[in-house]
Amino acid sequence: MKRTSRDIRTANRYGVLRQIIADSPASRQEVAAATGLSLATVATLVGELLELGLLTEVGFEDSDGGRPRGLVAVHAAGGALIGVDVAETYIHVELFDLALKVLARADTELKPGMKQPDQMVAHIADAIASVVVQSGVEPGTVLGAGISMPGQVDREGGSLLYAPNWDWHDVPLLGLLAEHVDYPLYLDNPLHACTVAELWFGAARGRSDVVVVNLGTGVGAGIALNGELHRGITNSAGEWGHTTLVLDGRLCHCGNRGCVETYVGAPGIMRNLRELSPDSPMLHPDDQTATIEALASGAAAGDPVAVEVVRETARYLGAAISDLVNLLNPEVVVLSSWVAGKLGRPLLDEVREAVARRALARPLAATEIVLCPIPTDPVSLGAATFALEGSLASVGQKAPRTASKTLGDRDR
Amino acid sequence: MKRTSRDIRTANRYGVLRQIIADSPASRQEVAAATGLSLATVATLVGELLELGLLTEVGFEDSDGGRPRGLVAVHAAGGALIGVDVAETYIHVELFDLALKVLARADTELKPGMKQPDQMVAHIADAIASVVVQSGVEPGTVLGAGISMPGQVDREGGSLLYAPNWDWHDVPLLGLLAEHVDYPLYLDNPLHACTVAELWFGAARGRSDVVVVNLGTGVGAGIALNGELHRGITNSAGEWGHTTLVLDGRLCHCGNRGCVETYVGAPGIMRNLRELSPDSPMLHPDDQTATIEALASGAAAGDPVAVEVVRETARYLGAAISDLVNLLNPEVVVLSSWVAGKLGRPLLDEVREAVARRALARPLAATEIVLCPIPTDPVSLGAATFALEGSLASVGQKAPRTASKTLGDRDR
Ligand SMILES: [Zn+2]
Ligand SMILES: [Zn+2]
Repeated sequence: MKRTSRDIRTANRYGVLRQIIADSPASRQEVAAATGLSLATVATLVGELLELGLLTEVGFEDSDGGRPRGLVAVHAAGGALIGVDVAETYIHVELFDLALKVLARADTELKPGMKQPDQMVAHIADAIASVVVQSGVEPGTVLGAGISMPGQVDREGGSLLYAPNWDWHDVPLLGLLAEHVDYPLYLDNPLHACTVAELWFGAARGRSDVVVVNLGTGVGAGIALNGELHRGITNSAGEWGHTTLVLDGRLCHCGNRGCVETYVGAPGIMRNLRELSPDSPMLHPDDQTATIEALASGAAAGDPVAVEVVRETARYLGAAISDLVNLLNPEVVVLSSWVAGKLGRPLLDEVREAVARRALARPLAATEIVLCPIPTDPVSLGAATFALEGSLASVGQKAPRTASKTLGDRDR
Repeated sequence: MKRTSRDIRTANRYGVLRQIIADSPASRQEVAAATGLSLATVATLVGELLELGLLTEVGFEDSDGGRPRGLVAVHAAGGALIGVDVAETYIHVELFDLALKVLARADTELKPGMKQPDQMVAHIADAIASVVVQSGVEPGTVLGAGISMPGQVDREGGSLLYAPNWDWHDVPLLGLLAEHVDYPLYLDNPLHACTVAELWFGAARGRSDVVVVNLGTGVGAGIALNGELHRGITNSAGEWGHTTLVLDGRLCHCGNRGCVETYVGAPGIMRNLRELSPDSPMLHPDDQTATIEALASGAAAGDPVAVEVVRETARYLGAAISDLVNLLNPEVVVLSSWVAGKLGRPLLDEVREAVARRALARPLAATEIVLCPIPTDPVSLGAATFALEGSLASVGQKAPRTASKTLGDRDR
């Protein structure tokens, strides 16, 4: 009911570009076969994308005696995208070409005392300016910048409703940033950014129903259905970390007990280790990263305590992932974020076994569980993708309030 | 990616008809305002529905000095729909007019020994023939029959992959039924039927993201996103009853421990009662219905044991519903099926309090929790709706394999 023909055209435009980014050069026939769209629709959308300069013609291929077929590819230099990943302790900014290759990076450390929105905005603006200069791209070709902020985000309004790290309430972040940055700006959270990155460039590409399980200090589950991010009615879908795994179990910072996060987030895994072996040298009480890395090395070396902690963590994680499999019946579950990256294959193997023991047979048989295949930071990549999606969505529309130019403008 | 322009046209056709069924007569302008579709789109779709005989023109209304606006209404006699609700112990069949008013009913009791698909098919066919005769509708006006079967359903293939009640495996139900019944047939399960009934006629109408929590002997959660049922990749989404609420908790018939169903399904509620008061006269060990009814009367009369059992059940249910709220961020959660119907308001009040204590503030504030408002059997209504959706989806398409006629044929 809430979808219009414009929405479906935009989604199809995403689908065609996604496919061509994945597999260039391609004929319109190949794109039609891969996306399930009609050849006529693909031809129209490819025409639009060529006109916008996002694609380019790259010759012809023979088609078994028929007319030679025109091939198109991503026009890597046809535009630049900026992805901003703001976390508690750092700002990580990347500038991408349209093939989503990183052309420049900027990293800023955030001091613990940094609490003012103005300071944050200045840091972000500086980093954005820096990647543009470093990359040497013409500023006029930057299609936009996506900003991922940890907290509750009002996308449309461009404001942070609540950011627990800095105790921010109702900060009009994009409005402040627009005073320094002259590109279209897009705001969302890291969970949604990771999920969109998987949709465009990762394990969710071409799949319809996908869950991206984010394992870091906090945990969450990004949900993509029909090839699109499910945001929920107030953009807060995905709070799987605060679903109950053990009623009346471990106390969680959200105020409840037994939340998934308290068993499989980094502090939860540290607790799993402490309960099994309180004096383990792998335990660095004030350093989550060091502890998870020690567990990863230990598990790789066959250390029995490390192996057992990974197994116990996978038992919790397997039960919680089985819940997602039973409830949502997805095609793929992706394990993402830094804890999954560090624990890697040993965690994946144990999780697969744990899910196989617990999920219902029918959804289980339809679900693949994989590690995030994206080699770079999925959050800044996903943030850049918000800018790409935004510029594709605004084709033919008037410029958004916070933006000074859009693809549509460039085209005139 | 998997959605085509045809899908969006079909969804919009559903949306327009849904709105007009809800609120007849209506002008095209009112329908456009209520659905968010453009007036031009609404005018086209209303034109189609008029031509199909599903709507009828019913006069004009003044529009403040402008041109009088044409009013349309559902053409109740424009077609008939049959809904079949098959459960472990009964077959319940209803025939509806297009305003979804029940014109005839047929009930068949299923003997415990009834295990053969052929017997079941004969019973269903007889009941369908009976409601057509009773209602006096012209057989040629029957648009189709939807069949809800408890078990794992292959919708497209029209077969029951697994039905635990009768130990059926891979029974080609629609194929068998088509030898006796000459209407288009549609197959799905009761959870999906209930959810579609809420979307068209109940608490989910006009809402985008909705969860229908089904509380019966078994429990499940039908999920509707963007105004459409989420089926999952193998049509088995919604197995919320077998998500974990208490890791290592009560043993479930699925083989796991601590599943939601073991705490809030009818047998689970009986166990809640037994644990609190083993000798309670409300406990009828072999009769779920009598026990739940005794609890309902007890709670209404202020009996402290009944009140406490409802509260304890709501504590479990509230935690499990909070998980849905945190994960999916829905607009509405509907409590449906017979246990929710019998425990009614006292259960609803306790559940609302329990969810308010547990869910995260932002999704909580966006979610309403209500009892199913549909006054008749939502499963047969939902099954009939599958037939309505099927006939709207097949407009202009060739007849489905199991069907002898469709709206498209009637129209020629
Ligand atoms: Zn929590
Ligand atoms: Zn179970």
